[in-house]
Amino acid sequence: MRTFLQQARETVRRCRRLAECTEEPGRITRTFLSAPMHDVHTLVRTWMEAAGMTVRVDGAGNIRGTYGEGPRLMIGSHLDTVPDAGGFDGILGVMMGIALVERRPPCSVEVVGFSEEEGVRFGVPFIGSRAMVGTREFHKGIDDAIRAFGLNPRDDAGLGDDVRAYLEFHIEQGPVLDRKNLPLGVVEAIVGQSRYTVRFAGEANHAGTTPMKTRADALVAAAEWIGLVRKTALAEPGLVATVGQLRVYPGAVNVIPGAVEASLDIRHADDRVRDRVARRILKGVECAERSKQPATPMDPAMVQALCAAVKATGNRVHRMVSGAGHDAMILAAKVPAAMLFLRSPGGISHHPGESVRVEDVAAALAVGTRLLDDWRPA
Amino acid sequence: MRTFLQQARETVRRCRRLAECTEEPGRITRTFLSAPMHDVHTLVRTWMEAAGMTVRVDGAGNIRGTYGEGPRLMIGSHLDTVPDAGGFDGILGVMMGIALVERRPPCSVEVVGFSEEEGVRFGVPFIGSRAMVGTREFHKGIDDAIRAFGLNPRDDAGLGDDVRAYLEFHIEQGPVLDRKNLPLGVVEAIVGQSRYTVRFAGEANHAGTTPMKTRADALVAAAEWIGLVRKTALAEPGLVATVGQLRVYPGAVNVIPGAVEASLDIRHADDRVRDRVARRILKGVECAERSKQPATPMDPAMVQALCAAVKATGNRVHRMVSGAGHDAMILAAKVPAAMLFLRSPGGISHHPGESVRVEDVAAALAVGTRLLDDWRPA
Repeated sequence: MRTFLQQARETVRRCRRLAECTEEPGRITRTFLSAPMHDVHTLVRTWMEAAGMTVRVDGAGNIRGTYGEGPRLMIGSHLDTVPDAGGFDGILGVMMGIALVERRPPCSVEVVGFSEEEGVRFGVPFIGSRAMVGTREFHKGIDDAIRAFGLNPRDDAGLGDDVRAYLEFHIEQGPVLDRKNLPLGVVEAIVGQSRYTVRFAGEANHAGTTPMKTRADALVAAAEWIGLVRKTALAEPGLVATVGQLRVYPGAVNVIPGAVEASLDIRHADDRVRDRVARRILKGVECAERSKQPATPMDPAMVQALCAAVKATGNRVHRMVSGAGHDAMILAAKVPAAMLFLRSPGGISHHPGESVRVEDVAAALAVGTRLLDDWRPA
Repeated sequence: MRTFLQQARETVRRCRRLAECTEEPGRITRTFLSAPMHDVHTLVRTWMEAAGMTVRVDGAGNIRGTYGEGPRLMIGSHLDTVPDAGGFDGILGVMMGIALVERRPPCSVEVVGFSEEEGVRFGVPFIGSRAMVGTREFHKGIDDAIRAFGLNPRDDAGLGDDVRAYLEFHIEQGPVLDRKNLPLGVVEAIVGQSRYTVRFAGEANHAGTTPMKTRADALVAAAEWIGLVRKTALAEPGLVATVGQLRVYPGAVNVIPGAVEASLDIRHADDRVRDRVARRILKGVECAERSKQPATPMDPAMVQALCAAVKATGNRVHRMVSGAGHDAMILAAKVPAAMLFLRSPGGISHHPGESVRVEDVAAALAVGTRLLDDWRPA
């Protein structure tokens, strides 16, 4: 049997090979069931079958390989990308599953490559995993895309009775492990997040003829609020708050801004903390909630098992929170779920510079192997 | 002879009549030599000729009516508008000139309706007045528009030797006179203005996975700077500084802003003050100068004559600075120039709600009549 390091090299090679399947030459862009996903499926199927798996593509476009019989552990992540992506976000988790099956674990395993997680093509994220747990909303465009890909949206995409737990390997996509010089992190919870649209009203007026003292400048008000958002977020451990969009109306060099519209994205692992801080940030401000997603704790027993495997393979145990949503968050509604983060060098993700260290992949393979050795279906 | 109040009513009626000449039904929009300018010229010509003027349209599309012979005072303003404008910006000044000629002044007068001041159609302001003083830049689009209007851009548009001074009546377009409850203001100077593009660089990163402490958020930096702009401007009497445009990159809800581009417009009647404050505001900031226009003092003798006329007609003399550019600023390069501001109710301008009080127009007519009675060409 090959060493973990040899397998890690092969795993990274496979990620780079899949990165060649793209909608845009010179950039990695692969949205939900776009044409290059055919090539991805061909390659993934080849590797899965070579590892001894029985492969099918379900009615939501998820590619699924089953190893062994009866109650099983599902290992997976997504195969789609953001525009101009890196090569490891999502894809690495699927390749990790294949590599672990290649080691012939003592339990049954299903490896899944979800069709969609990023929400790029239809503005609807988690199409693959939501279909699997039965919370997909109807969307004609998505059904049409499934048919155009040569699949039938009415075909079964359910989790099935035999899947008893879900495990996802994923790059951290943040700087925490890299700064702490740690290869791996055990995810305890995925943050909840709320998004708001915030509006500031002022009085659009001539930039030359309106004295400073008589102005009602909406951008000045928004700027002050952005400072408050940062100050408030900094004071709350583990909380992040971001103003990522801002539009100024009318938006002319010589007109005092009469209105500003801004976005607010706020996340924390504890919903009560997030709601409390959101109330403070939004006090006295005109706002509308755009979306709200509660925090998702990972399964305590699975987290414990992962921590034990991390320790047993000679790594330091670091428990952490995921600041981004992942398929594991969706699967957690149905089965015990857990995640293992791999260090993101430089914290870089959703960018061509996204990478992963081969040694970290080898360490994660060792942890996964150990976990599968000890895993028993509930 | 009619009273000033009767004439003022007629003057306002004429402005409202011209407001019907528009490119957009239901809104007042009349850019440089657009089709509705033909109707404007027809009406203006009729009123000018009825007042005893000889009328021509020059090679820049300015309509010019001459009353009397020899050395003369030019009275004018512009006939174009911003999109969705009010009915008095510019136009009122031309109608004032016609009304003053109707009173048969003892001196020769040329009334001019400039073809362009706002810079809407070609992004080039003051086309009419710049052509008159010989500082028009060559622009093929403008020449084509002149030809399309039925004129020859090679035809003379010069000021001529007989024009010895320039007087412009204009609504204030700001709140100062209205707040002071004054009908009229004598303009001493037109502010100088500088415009800059300011850039803030940060690091675009995931809004969920990047802890607050490790962020380099370009919008947070820009917001802090906007606060500084306001604070610095407030501390300098007579100075105005405006951030009217702001763009965030990449501008996604869930991405920390990696770059921000903002505009800065800064004005003051004293160029040294403006430059000093601009240096303070832009210290340590990446910026590029987009345009710079020095302050333009009005002619001291003309200002004195206007003040005397204001006083003689029973009004309080209020000297002020114009925060906006006007044709008088262009003409001042060639002849002694002065401006009289009329109160803008609510400070509203460049807006359908723009208005002027009939009593204020009557007061301005009295001032203009007095000035013409006493005016002698230098």
